[in-house]
Amino acid sequence: MNTYIKEHIEKFQEVNKNRGRLLVSCSDQPGIVSAVSHFLFSYQANIIESSQYSTNPEGGVFFIRIEFECPDLKEKAKDMEKQFANIAEKFSMEWKLSHVYLVKRAAIFVSKEPHCLLELLWEWQSGDLMAEIALVISNHEDARDAVEGLNIPFYYIPANKDIRKQAEAQQLQLLTEHEIDFVILARYMQILTPDFVAANPNKIINIHHSFLPAFVGAKPYERAHARGVKLIGATSHYVTNDLDEGPIIEQDIARVNHHDDVDSLKKIGRRIERSVLARAVKWHIEDRIIVHQNKTIVF
Amino acid sequence: MNTYIKEHIEKFQEVNKNRGRLLVSCSDQPGIVSAVSHFLFSYQANIIESSQYSTNPEGGVFFIRIEFECPDLKEKAKDMEKQFANIAEKFSMEWKLSHVYLVKRAAIFVSKEPHCLLELLWEWQSGDLMAEIALVISNHEDARDAVEGLNIPFYYIPANKDIRKQAEAQQLQLLTEHEIDFVILARYMQILTPDFVAANPNKIINIHHSFLPAFVGAKPYERAHARGVKLIGATSHYVTNDLDEGPIIEQDIARVNHHDDVDSLKKIGRRIERSVLARAVKWHIEDRIIVHQNKTIVF
Amino acid sequence: MNTYIKEHIEKFQEVNKNRGRLLVSCSDQPGIVSAVSHFLFSYQANIIESSQYSTNPEGGVFFIRIEFECPDLKEKAKDMEKQFANIAEKFSMEWKLSHVYLVKRAAIFVSKEPHCLLELLWEWQSGDLMAEIALVISNHEDARDAVEGLNIPFYYIPANKDIRKQAEAQQLQLLTEHEIDFVILARYMQILTPDFVAANPNKIINIHHSFLPAFVGAKPYERAHARGVKLIGATSHYVTNDLDEGPIIEQDIARVNHHDDVDSLKKIGRRIERSVLARAVKWHIEDRIIVHQNKTIVF
Amino acid sequence: MNTYIKEHIEKFQEVNKNRGRLLVSCSDQPGIVSAVSHFLFSYQANIIESSQYSTNPEGGVFFIRIEFECPDLKEKAKDMEKQFANIAEKFSMEWKLSHVYLVKRAAIFVSKEPHCLLELLWEWQSGDLMAEIALVISNHEDARDAVEGLNIPFYYIPANKDIRKQAEAQQLQLLTEHEIDFVILARYMQILTPDFVAANPNKIINIHHSFLPAFVGAKPYERAHARGVKLIGATSHYVTNDLDEGPIIEQDIARVNHHDDVDSLKKIGRRIERSVLARAVKWHIEDRIIVHQNKTIVF
Repeated sequence: MNTYIKEHIEKFQEVNKNRGRLLVSCSDQPGIVSAVSHFLFSYQANIIESSQYSTNPEGGVFFIRIEFECPDLKEKAKDMEKQFANIAEKFSMEWKLSHVYLVKRAAIFVSKEPHCLLELLWEWQSGDLMAEIALVISNHEDARDAVEGLNIPFYYIPANKDIRKQAEAQQLQLLTEHEIDFVILARYMQILTPDFVAANPNKIINIHHSFLPAFVGAKPYERAHARGVKLIGATSHYVTNDLDEGPIIEQDIARVNHHDDVDSLKKIGRRIERSVLARAVKWHIEDRIIVHQNKTIVF
Repeated sequence: MNTYIKEHIEKFQEVNKNRGRLLVSCSDQPGIVSAVSHFLFSYQANIIESSQYSTNPEGGVFFIRIEFECPDLKEKAKDMEKQFANIAEKFSMEWKLSHVYLVKRAAIFVSKEPHCLLELLWEWQSGDLMAEIALVISNHEDARDAVEGLNIPFYYIPANKDIRKQAEAQQLQLLTEHEIDFVILARYMQILTPDFVAANPNKIINIHHSFLPAFVGAKPYERAHARGVKLIGATSHYVTNDLDEGPIIEQDIARVNHHDDVDSLKKIGRRIERSVLARAVKWHIEDRIIVHQNKTIVF
Repeated sequence: MNTYIKEHIEKFQEVNKNRGRLLVSCSDQPGIVSAVSHFLFSYQANIIESSQYSTNPEGGVFFIRIEFECPDLKEKAKDMEKQFANIAEKFSMEWKLSHVYLVKRAAIFVSKEPHCLLELLWEWQSGDLMAEIALVISNHEDARDAVEGLNIPFYYIPANKDIRKQAEAQQLQLLTEHEIDFVILARYMQILTPDFVAANPNKIINIHHSFLPAFVGAKPYERAHARGVKLIGATSHYVTNDLDEGPIIEQDIARVNHHDDVDSLKKIGRRIERSVLARAVKWHIEDRIIVHQNKTIVF
Repeated sequence: MNTYIKEHIEKFQEVNKNRGRLLVSCSDQPGIVSAVSHFLFSYQANIIESSQYSTNPEGGVFFIRIEFECPDLKEKAKDMEKQFANIAEKFSMEWKLSHVYLVKRAAIFVSKEPHCLLELLWEWQSGDLMAEIALVISNHEDARDAVEGLNIPFYYIPANKDIRKQAEAQQLQLLTEHEIDFVILARYMQILTPDFVAANPNKIINIHHSFLPAFVGAKPYERAHARGVKLIGATSHYVTNDLDEGPIIEQDIARVNHHDDVDSLKKIGRRIERSVLARAVKWHIEDRIIVHQNKTIVF
């Protein structure tokens, strides 16, 4: 990693050494917020940001994300985890306590088109995307220079449907070796096998080049052009085994008109894809996304 | 019609008494613009606005819309039509010469939900929608007061799939009696028969409450909610016999999130539907729309 | 009030009879959320929605808005107020406990241009704006029919700078008689005196027809046209005694181009003004807006 | 220049070897389009795209931009220029005939913040910005690596108000040596002298980090934050000697809220600045912009 990116990250870790996040979901009922906030207060934690949502106050599912500042978090963390388990048991909660200074480690997969990869690298260099980009994997050599120029390891792994299993075996091994927390498909044009997806639930973020559920599948810009739509879009979603049917994280659109041919739609679309994927990745890194019944709650 | 709306229209007609529009399409080739503009100049017409588009300069189809100011247009109109026919023959043109002071006559069809109808009536009252709203037809009585309060004839014609033919016979007769130029389906929730559609090619404007081609058919807001999209939309299109597959005129979207239930999506959607339909109607009235191969060119 | 609007409101009140809102601000410190949520839990209240913000976790000001469902709220309300006062004292809180079934009473002021008034009336009729529109005051007669047609009292009070004091005396008396909670200036083109404003702090919502702080003052569309901007906007804000300098609640914009003359800008602008004001009013009604140092926090 | 960018440009030049653009302005009167289109037809030129605008059909100024395909344009160009001069004289036209294969040569000026420069370089590498970036000039060394990595000459010229004259002398000499057609100020934080500006009329494109005319001058994000606006923006304009008062080419905005501090506004703003400047540069390169009375017509 380049020195100045390392400095970005180290500064971020210092600033956030006492910053924690608590994500909880359980059956909605009175007393949840009271119990959770009392718990945090008992550790002198100050709640900095809090968002909650209930599918239905009567018998629905309740979700909360709390970001807090807690003196000596590192030292207290283990004990907090242990103590919170008691509360969680009482309310039958699913929960996660995360420490902001533990920066997430990402792998980026890319094929030939570099625009989404370049956007992420730029955000990363400028300190706007606070993750460790641990490696880039591609089935083409095109992006090698741009990636290695930033001292990020680049792995060329040929892939097509005939050699999918071998390719994925290599990929999974690299993810393990590099202790990857999540995978970004930055216009990676290969389908992943159910095994690969199952090994990374809600940990693979894809960018699809259409406004889903319109134009599921291949060649969305060509089909958007044929249909004569007046807006085109892009969609970032978690990957599941139903093609382009995973939980949607973010979408955006741009206006087009009859002058725009397919190439022009692609050019306009690249700008949307870049920003939609960058926002989705940012929210994932900040633990803002909860998946529930194939939909996302973005806090 | 109310006196002040009548005044709006009369003033518009006076201002536009010499204003004409020429729409032309033909095989692309050098010399078209030269011939058309020379023709207009020979009548002392001044070109006020001109837009053109070619599907492909080599062997494609060429489209042009010209708005012009021509002294004594009323007197010259007949002769212009006759003379232009010669040019049109030479280039094998499809064409239409229209006179702006001949305000188009519209029929609005509506079912229970009044928001799109009300939007059109408001735009009309404020002079922003320059058509004669000749009548409103509904399969419910709900809108009668709002419509008759503006001295517009209101016809209640019950409709459902069992009595479709009789209902359409009545409707078509009314369209003829009132010399209707085009029909606006302002959330009219009945399917039209192929006969009705065939009788009004590219003359029926619908508003669909989704971002087509996503959620073709019934209950789009329910399905948008189920899919967890982050944007919802509305689409205005000409009606063809393929349900929701007609040429798209205009689309727009609004951002939503996990807090929005189906009712909330409908509420947000109503605002989009209103403005999308109003824009589509305005462009139709101004002869800005050309349909080509199930797509629209909007000049 | 019309019967069906009355029914809308009565249904809303029934649905929300146990729904309360608590707004709090105080110096940021650990323990606030814990104390407030414990208080609510002690009344069996279930937190439905909660939003918070701190200007600075270390020594800043903390704001929270909680919407809750509390069985038998009507009966408990008085006791809750009393008990919460103790907590409030401990943390030096400013606070407000409101009951959603007590629908707010609004007065709308309008001059000649009716579009913002009509938008509010339409949202009101369709049940999207849950307030009692108790009266409309205008310095012109134009809107009388539209208002009285909905059985809303309409008062014509001539106003100009020479008779401002008398006019405002009449207006203030009407506000008192009708027990008005807040005032909406729906394109009311008269300046209010400092006395009038002082009598209604953060209770007068204005719509300004520009993207503030651009084009403060008169004739913003004319000045936008002269400057050649590519976007025009509208701004809704609370009225203070600094002209167009009050806390901004909401803003929006639309794209324009060189074809748009001043009339066209006004036409486009009317659509923005309508929706921006409607959103601001909705947020005010739902107690979502907190004013702090001439800025708004919109929860 | 890198080989692959050179290939992009050479391919573009080959495709556009017969493509021309004609820009004309003169007093509005009948016969202009007829004369111009007849002229083009006489050279067998086919009009591909045509846009026109009149400030007022009666006595106003008329503008037209025509893009055409003309066989053997290179050979005919000189003669066309000569012949068109006759038409131009008759109508007292200002006009420009340009050849698309003559790719424009740009100089980019930048200070410390690299995001706008990087955006332009990316668009350039991907073939979306069809100009020759002949050199980059900066008053800081930061961007040297990124620029020289693409084989673009980088010149470090220190600049501040005390040495402005010397700095500009060096800059102007470089512009001459490199035969620069236009200058892009990609967040160049130095004021240019009237002499520098006068030497490059409508040839210097700036990006201002606010929604002009709001927040003219320094520190716009800080002032936007202080005012509590709900939208922030960026503006690209030609540089004149009135600070931030030059003709606006393009603007865009993004939504912000009370959570966004000044740093967050800057981060969001960078994305707007990048895309607004890129669009303005693209339109300039394509000869789409005409300046008239300190406003732009963008065709």
